Amino acid sequence: MISIALLGAGRIGQIHGRNIAASSRAKLAGIADPLPEGANALSKATGAPVRPAEELIADRAIDAVLIGTPTDTHADYIDQAAAAGKAILCEKPVDLNSARIVETLERVKKAGVPLMIGFNRRFDPNFAALRKRLEDGVAGDVELVTIVSRDPGPPPISYIQRSGGLYRDMMIHDLDMARFLLAEDPVEVYALGSSLVDPEIGKAGDVDTAAVLLKTASGRICQISCSRRATYGYDQRVEVHGSKGLLAAGNIHETTVTFAGGQGFTADPAQNFFLERYAAAYRNEVEAFIDTVETGKAPSPSGLDGLRAQQLADAAQTSLETGKPVKVG
Amino acid sequence: MISIALLGAGRIGQIHGRNIAASSRAKLAGIADPLPEGANALSKATGAPVRPAEELIADRAIDAVLIGTPTDTHADYIDQAAAAGKAILCEKPVDLNSARIVETLERVKKAGVPLMIGFNRRFDPNFAALRKRLEDGVAGDVELVTIVSRDPGPPPISYIQRSGGLYRDMMIHDLDMARFLLAEDPVEVYALGSSLVDPEIGKAGDVDTAAVLLKTASGRICQISCSRRATYGYDQRVEVHGSKGLLAAGNIHETTVTFAGGQGFTADPAQNFFLERYAAAYRNEVEAFIDTVETGKAPSPSGLDGLRAQQLADAAQTSLETGKPVKVG
Amino acid sequence: MISIALLGAGRIGQIHGRNIAASSRAKLAGIADPLPEGANALSKATGAPVRPAEELIADRAIDAVLIGTPTDTHADYIDQAAAAGKAILCEKPVDLNSARIVETLERVKKAGVPLMIGFNRRFDPNFAALRKRLEDGVAGDVELVTIVSRDPGPPPISYIQRSGGLYRDMMIHDLDMARFLLAEDPVEVYALGSSLVDPEIGKAGDVDTAAVLLKTASGRICQISCSRRATYGYDQRVEVHGSKGLLAAGNIHETTVTFAGGQGFTADPAQNFFLERYAAAYRNEVEAFIDTVETGKAPSPSGLDGLRAQQLADAAQTSLETGKPVKVG
Amino acid sequence: MISIALLGAGRIGQIHGRNIAASSRAKLAGIADPLPEGANALSKATGAPVRPAEELIADRAIDAVLIGTPTDTHADYIDQAAAAGKAILCEKPVDLNSARIVETLERVKKAGVPLMIGFNRRFDPNFAALRKRLEDGVAGDVELVTIVSRDPGPPPISYIQRSGGLYRDMMIHDLDMARFLLAEDPVEVYALGSSLVDPEIGKAGDVDTAAVLLKTASGRICQISCSRRATYGYDQRVEVHGSKGLLAAGNIHETTVTFAGGQGFTADPAQNFFLERYAAAYRNEVEAFIDTVETGKAPSPSGLDGLRAQQLADAAQTSLETGKPVKVG
Repeated sequence: MISIALLGAGRIGQIHGRNIAASSRAKLAGIADPLPEGANALSKATGAPVRPAEELIADRAIDAVLIGTPTDTHADYIDQAAAAGKAILCEKPVDLNSARIVETLERVKKAGVPLMIGFNRRFDPNFAALRKRLEDGVAGDVELVTIVSRDPGPPPISYIQRSGGLYRDMMIHDLDMARFLLAEDPVEVYALGSSLVDPEIGKAGDVDTAAVLLKTASGRICQISCSRRATYGYDQRVEVHGSKGLLAAGNIHETTVTFAGGQGFTADPAQNFFLERYAAAYRNEVEAFIDTVETGKAPSPSGLDGLRAQQLADAAQTSLETGKPVKVG
Repeated sequence: MISIALLGAGRIGQIHGRNIAASSRAKLAGIADPLPEGANALSKATGAPVRPAEELIADRAIDAVLIGTPTDTHADYIDQAAAAGKAILCEKPVDLNSARIVETLERVKKAGVPLMIGFNRRFDPNFAALRKRLEDGVAGDVELVTIVSRDPGPPPISYIQRSGGLYRDMMIHDLDMARFLLAEDPVEVYALGSSLVDPEIGKAGDVDTAAVLLKTASGRICQISCSRRATYGYDQRVEVHGSKGLLAAGNIHETTVTFAGGQGFTADPAQNFFLERYAAAYRNEVEAFIDTVETGKAPSPSGLDGLRAQQLADAAQTSLETGKPVKVG
Repeated sequence: MISIALLGAGRIGQIHGRNIAASSRAKLAGIADPLPEGANALSKATGAPVRPAEELIADRAIDAVLIGTPTDTHADYIDQAAAAGKAILCEKPVDLNSARIVETLERVKKAGVPLMIGFNRRFDPNFAALRKRLEDGVAGDVELVTIVSRDPGPPPISYIQRSGGLYRDMMIHDLDMARFLLAEDPVEVYALGSSLVDPEIGKAGDVDTAAVLLKTASGRICQISCSRRATYGYDQRVEVHGSKGLLAAGNIHETTVTFAGGQGFTADPAQNFFLERYAAAYRNEVEAFIDTVETGKAPSPSGLDGLRAQQLADAAQTSLETGKPVKVG
Repeated sequence: MISIALLGAGRIGQIHGRNIAASSRAKLAGIADPLPEGANALSKATGAPVRPAEELIADRAIDAVLIGTPTDTHADYIDQAAAAGKAILCEKPVDLNSARIVETLERVKKAGVPLMIGFNRRFDPNFAALRKRLEDGVAGDVELVTIVSRDPGPPPISYIQRSGGLYRDMMIHDLDMARFLLAEDPVEVYALGSSLVDPEIGKAGDVDTAAVLLKTASGRICQISCSRRATYGYDQRVEVHGSKGLLAAGNIHETTVTFAGGQGFTADPAQNFFLERYAAAYRNEVEAFIDTVETGKAPSPSGLDGLRAQQLADAAQTSLETGKPVKVG
């Protein structure tokens, strides 16, 4: 029975805390959040005590911490937890600054603790099954990967302003997915971006509609497109074109109900909310982390995976700003 | 080059006439219709002369006749064409009276001419491919066949009144399809029917919503459902459940375009008009008839196939009227 | 907080017990099962004590019982629980003998306790959404309902022998679904049935491939088809054809992954296992039962719904045996 | 009745010639091809005489020419036909050299004859319907266009060598489609390309797997991906993401038949052969040309559309060679 402390009881922390509590192999040992409301609600639902983060990190009875706090606290908490010898599952990104990530990964390495990064989509049963079939050779050699990622609607401008920009905030999930599916690291990034959804996003210095092209050393190509708005739900699709055929994973509709009438045949919108769309992914992610802690196997996605995705996002941002492709790695 | 005369230049005759003219293996040798408008239009489009039916049947230079005249003239024209030694392709049904069909088939047999019945759906590329895969054993042993048949809207009441009723007029196509897919003759028919679409149809003594169950000697089951109205186009689907799996053929949409918006994902309605939906079927049907004439192989569907379907339709009508299952064959 | 005892810790009891324990509005107050293995496992997972059924029923601190024991004990347990003033959720059927059901419903009525029957499919999010849209008038007046129900594979012959036959054991779910979707009671049933999947089933006096036609007083038609085997998963589909269009709910595939290669485009099989396919339905069912107990509103599906479905199944069996349609109600 | 001469009786000329002959508004006035075989076959099928190209162009009784000869003869034939006052439908491209295209368009302009370019995909009923809905505002403002284009298999290396490269030979159709759907001219092109399908293609100095990103002045983005090989048929898809939703047009399967078995649910491959996939498009293209000649309205796609697509292809090739985005227009 792994004893896990949760740092951060916001929207995503609520999910993780409940998943830890529901696991038959872990217990939620404590909850830390400076805002009492979320922490108390989660404590009531799970029975886990609310305690200061420092106390939880120092508690020798606790094996691991799950960090779901605001991004700018991630690196510090990782440093502290690593120093205390805890296994760590941290929400992406480790930091918006890649140099800071490198420093933290060094400390983690010295501490000898496992660090897993919360790229939840890798644990989605559909994307995981697709990746498994790639490994089994179903599609042959990978040639061309296409990733579509469109949020139902943009976040508040206040969020946009401190988000690090679309590539680091939103597309980073897709850049990790690209690495997951390409089975090879991209060596070059070219990015386009526009503000077409909401001019306020453009005024805030960000884009809301974006596409990148990635190329690997062996010539594999990946195209990613993102939008901050999709009227038909949360659009999350991948396609991998290989020498033997095309593997694809499509959207999940709200229900299987269809209606056929004068306008045609209508299926439900795609599931709209990321916590619903990726509910199984979050469960599986926590279980994979528990596996890592129990078995001592290498964490995946690792801190290095987190760094690589961040470097791709940085490169995309630079490409947007310079209008040129940017080399990576 | 087969020389074919067309009797009847109405809606379906226009199609057949053009298909004969467009075939590289046949020529349209003449067109007969008491109403000059359709005949002249077809003559202009194809270059074939308009002549009286009797003349065409008597013309020794003509190898075959395609009968697309009103139902109540079919049997007489078959009799005459058979007496004149012509190969015959006749629209379904030979007659609304099964006894009359039996007599005509006798005469055709004595005359030794091929008689093919226009069950066009057997020649639809999709249904034909499905049947081919059944023959190839893809689905294993046939157990349960489901046929869905729904017209976009009901015909005029005046047509309903002289149609012989839904089972003989509309479901007869599905009853033939049942025989085509079951690969065994039904031995019992049970029918339900209601007038739910238009009360005038009920007043005319007919039903507009109907379902039948068929059973074969070996225990195979077929369910057919029909409606005289579907708001989403011409609904034409079949499913064959077998020991190895399920073969199905679905609707053809007007285009492949879909739109995703707040209401969900909408595909186009099914093709609405039977002449569009079965355009390829009509072409293939004429080619199959030409094959029959050229090669001397047995016509399929044969006059006996026409009789069997008619007997099933009669049985369904009797079942509706008596409320009991009716044995056939 | 509703206190619920579970009678029966077999396959379905395990699901119900966990769902009760996971609900924020109920607690699992005790588990009874003559076989200790399942009861102990569930007790370990949920913390609920294992106690004899009689004790749980007599315990005044317990508000409700969920009966998931073998069918032949249902009626007795309902009688006892009703006498003890408990709210009751009982797996279908109350009894294989309709007369016995009538007696039990009388006792429940006199006791004044709510009795809900476990027709889980009504609580499937997809079928529930379809029914909601029907109530909202999306499809207009219901005319023709089609229900497809095919199990991945047949149960053991020993189960078949004491099951009451396919109509009472398997199709009863579809007969309830028919009533759920028709919004009107069938007045006549005609049934076909064959043993095509496994001759042993036929030797045991049962069928494995079946179809029925139902008709309501106003002329609505329902066709149901069942098979004890489907090679492509657990096939569970419904279609409601109405005056305004067609509402349908299709199968749930194992993942959204598709592969396109030389053989075509392949989507995953349908979810194979009923406990997976209906996992959400079982959760929602328990929540609906808790609602009923909390609010005092009439239970749905009710004991009467259970009786009506059983009567339709009886009629189908009689129809199969006599070869004639059977009037109901 | 428009009188049209056909120059070139190869694979595509055979299609065009038959479509002209089958049109009720045009006649095929003559066929020219230095190779007698194709010309004679088409002459036999249509009744049109085989004559030298120069004679046909000089014949005053002929209104128009359709040029379906090898690419390196297009510009000369356009020059001659324009000088002779003929309306012209020319297969893409006018020339592989954009400067030569500019010269020819000048001559056509001076001659005052209509010149239409054979971008057949604009006339595909599905893509045309999608474009119509865009014009109707169904998807709102266009933001992000995705075009997928994958051939079933690569052409011979000898063809590759003189093709002008994938961007000019294959992707030019997609670049035209991009302009058709973006409703705005791209101002910048970035291209990636690899030889992954067949190393011989790489040795010939070409790529077989490619992707480009286009950006318009207002910030609209288009991503195109091409492959010279797809195991599942001829993959031709477009998606337009706009402010109101997503319009998409998918592949056409060989039949509507699906099979469900242990491996899942399998639909047919996409139609494999471009002449089959675009059969309706070629018919509609010829009819649109006849419209242009009959009514005097501006031809579309015009010579300028041909030039613009060629310039985008040139820019893509330059981008590939330089590794940098290239400005256009």
